[in-house]
Amino acid sequence: MLLKMIYRGLMIGNNIRKMPEYKLAYFDIRGLGEPIRLILSYMGKEFEDIRISQEEWPQLKKKTPFGKVPFLEIDGKVIHQTIAILRYLAPQAGLAGKNAEENLEIDMVVGAYGDLVADISRYWRTESPNEKEKLRETIINETIPLYMSKFENILKKNGGYLANGKLSWAELYVVGHNSSIPGLVGYDIDENYPFWKELTKRVHSLSGIKEWVKNRPVTVF
Amino acid sequence: MLLKMIYRGLMIGNNIRKMPEYKLAYFDIRGLGEPIRLILSYMGKEFEDIRISQEEWPQLKKKTPFGKVPFLEIDGKVIHQTIAILRYLAPQAGLAGKNAEENLEIDMVVGAYGDLVADISRYWRTESPNEKEKLRETIINETIPLYMSKFENILKKNGGYLANGKLSWAELYVVGHNSSIPGLVGYDIDENYPFWKELTKRVHSLSGIKEWVKNRPVTVF
Repeated sequence: MLLKMIYRGLMIGNNIRKMPEYKLAYFDIRGLGEPIRLILSYMGKEFEDIRISQEEWPQLKKKTPFGKVPFLEIDGKVIHQTIAILRYLAPQAGLAGKNAEENLEIDMVVGAYGDLVADISRYWRTESPNEKEKLRETIINETIPLYMSKFENILKKNGGYLANGKLSWAELYVVGHNSSIPGLVGYDIDENYPFWKELTKRVHSLSGIKEWVKNRPVTVF
Repeated sequence: MLLKMIYRGLMIGNNIRKMPEYKLAYFDIRGLGEPIRLILSYMGKEFEDIRISQEEWPQLKKKTPFGKVPFLEIDGKVIHQTIAILRYLAPQAGLAGKNAEENLEIDMVVGAYGDLVADISRYWRTESPNEKEKLRETIINETIPLYMSKFENILKKNGGYLANGKLSWAELYVVGHNSSIPGLVGYDIDENYPFWKELTKRVHSLSGIKEWVKNRPVTVF
């Protein structure tokens, strides 16, 4: 009887211990928001997936830390910057390196992919049609092939992973963003990079991510 | 006699234990190489400060991990990406956060400053004169003032630091790169941002960095 009461007490205790509340704010695209959606899904966390419309953005922009999205609210505390958010969640997800050397390997590959993200964003934000067309040619014929073949080599040498021969938040970052590239610049990455294609498949079949990818809103990029 | 011998043995042991050799490769500018030069100086490490000429670059570029500099060689191992390198050296320098929350604060501010770096680099790399002039106006009238006033507010609230109210590698990153902005875009940051100016002064007076800044090669940016 006493044991039963203690057990019930613990159960009630567990039930009233509030789970942290996650709200992710980003545009209605995958882009730099998707890696955060992937890691939260992988962690089995429910999150409010706020998708900001073009009409809402100018007002909301002023309230963000640096005029940018994505940001993540955890129990009301706003944190921002995709890489900072992923790195913060990674240990809780079991996706961080086990020491400084492993984290360095992850950070290097994430930083290199970040350079590619910046180049694509540069193209995307260019307004002059001439300049934009020139940039698009460089992106498609030089930038993406350069980065993709480097990553392909890394995957080949690392047992199909980007760092340390095992899954880390680096894969969620690149696979999450990468699914936007075909829609952003019209380049089909899977076509020429079998290890990369395999990586995408593997990440998309992870528990939590599998269900998310199956049910996520369909967007062009 | 025996003790003396043991003592001598230890001394010899210490002497033959080789200190790690650091070689930093970057262009003959401050830019994204300078934060690494600052942290090595702060740590009291001697390093070979390799400055790549325009003639040498095309050949060397092919040998870098992703066609980019800076990279740092530590005992022959090449590591790359400024932020990854700083984050790796930070614990050894005593400049990392003391837990995940402190590291998150550092990573957020570093990521935000990284967006500014990307915007400046976008301007710098634009070739069409019209587009470049337009970008320059945006950078000077909107981008830099937006970021600088946000950072100024953070400094004001954080006891003159960017995160956690104390010195971290974030300050070395931003102050190291920031000294290039006047030469890159013709914008004098110190002019309007007293907390920022004070931060630069404080970082430049740190032991090791003080001597480096005094003796470093003079470059336009």
